[in-house]
Amino acid sequence: MSKQRIALVVEYNGAAYKGWQAQKYDVATVQESLEIALSKIANHPISVICAGRTDAGVHASGQVVHFETSVDRPERAWTLGVNTHLPDDISVVAAKTVGDSFHARFSAVSRRYRYVIYQSELRPAIMAKSVTWTYKPLDIAKMQAACQCFIGTHDFTSFRAVGCQANSPVRTILNFSVDQFGQYIVLDVRANAFLHHMIRNFAGVLMTIGAGERPVEWAKTVLDACDRTQGGVTAPPFGLYFVDAEYPAELDAPRVPLGPHFLPYKQELPYELPC
Amino acid sequence: MSKQRIALVVEYNGAAYKGWQAQKYDVATVQESLEIALSKIANHPISVICAGRTDAGVHASGQVVHFETSVDRPERAWTLGVNTHLPDDISVVAAKTVGDSFHARFSAVSRRYRYVIYQSELRPAIMAKSVTWTYKPLDIAKMQAACQCFIGTHDFTSFRAVGCQANSPVRTILNFSVDQFGQYIVLDVRANAFLHHMIRNFAGVLMTIGAGERPVEWAKTVLDACDRTQGGVTAPPFGLYFVDAEYPAELDAPRVPLGPHFLPYKQELPYELPC
Repeated sequence: MSKQRIALVVEYNGAAYKGWQAQKYDVATVQESLEIALSKIANHPISVICAGRTDAGVHASGQVVHFETSVDRPERAWTLGVNTHLPDDISVVAAKTVGDSFHARFSAVSRRYRYVIYQSELRPAIMAKSVTWTYKPLDIAKMQAACQCFIGTHDFTSFRAVGCQANSPVRTILNFSVDQFGQYIVLDVRANAFLHHMIRNFAGVLMTIGAGERPVEWAKTVLDACDRTQGGVTAPPFGLYFVDAEYPAELDAPRVPLGPHFLPYKQELPYELPC
Repeated sequence: MSKQRIALVVEYNGAAYKGWQAQKYDVATVQESLEIALSKIANHPISVICAGRTDAGVHASGQVVHFETSVDRPERAWTLGVNTHLPDDISVVAAKTVGDSFHARFSAVSRRYRYVIYQSELRPAIMAKSVTWTYKPLDIAKMQAACQCFIGTHDFTSFRAVGCQANSPVRTILNFSVDQFGQYIVLDVRANAFLHHMIRNFAGVLMTIGAGERPVEWAKTVLDACDRTQGGVTAPPFGLYFVDAEYPAELDAPRVPLGPHFLPYKQELPYELPC
């Protein structure tokens, strides 16, 4: 038979992995674990392409990948079947046959991340590597005010890792919100695409402002400087979740409610996408 | 100086441990990790006694322990200081000097556990070992109705592990509720004390009833049988959290809001304790 293209939504706890991307060295990556499991179901080697590569320790509730296969399997073989070959901390949560024009990376019109901060005097042991802990009380209103300046199209050089390989530092932030749920403070950011460490660098600046160590206006000062050395610390990876990639409706991509599932957002689909 | 007695509240993710209790064999236990960390702060060997021993894979947001020490340290040495010597998945979240009459186990008048079920068609990768997953849709109203028969003083032989070492199978359940938060279903049980595997056996029966495989009345049939073989499966440990131990007010025990922290209960203290 001819080749088929399959798209998956993948959830993972990245704490035990050296990031998404398979590497030459013998280290655990999410991509490699997934390709091994898919290849067992397909009975031939499978290579996957993802919507957004995540760093070591970063999680996903809605990573999207696609791959090609020469075998015909029911969709549940690509979910239930693959899951039996995956470790506990990786799971396929949706699968769909898509057209040849679907490309997990190049067809995506936006990506969305959430960064989860846990504020308490003493560090948490439950979900220790699923949230970013701070003992500092944070002023959410200040963080909400500060993040507004990031919305729109800007040169984000100040929030870009030194080793970032993107051609341009210009990105368009479509939405940026800061929400509080009890002891959790969640940054929710949607953009056409992201630079390396961009959200963790946003989190570093916003946590500094929330803690009262810098004024609200500092966020714009950092942005305008176009200088990474002005930007402060890169926040830890453990609070970061890839939660969604959006595709043009005609591509009929698979989609799941916005996660991670422990956050008490209303998660029914279709969810609102203001922009 | 004379001996001091210190009480702690301890949070832990039990996924990596062979339970609470230190063992002769060289296996990781929460008690041993805690005693090693406390001994470093005290500069002498410390032994702890806990409110309720938990099994392999079981978690706690509010385990209570006490110990004696001959050194005088500020309370934050027993929290912040000890935490620097503990692994990521164990944390002291409160400490208080108590009187000699305080005993974490024998002074406790009740214990409280929560059992967290995650219902979804496909298994979760995030918090895989922090919840008990079921693909079966559960009827919460049936589970709420079924658990009522457990409230009060009963012979719980049907819910007691074969190896349980308690002298009597009679226990008093003070509260039993079933709550839903999105895809989470939470059993919340408070009792004077528990038998071995008691809550996991309750969970096994209630999940069977919630899935429609047995009628609501089956819970009472199992209870009345006083026969473990009538009780069905023991649910997995990963959804179980020790959340509280209550002590007489005059003992002035340390206390924290009811966890685990990812559940969106109202968690302000003092919380209501209906009985």
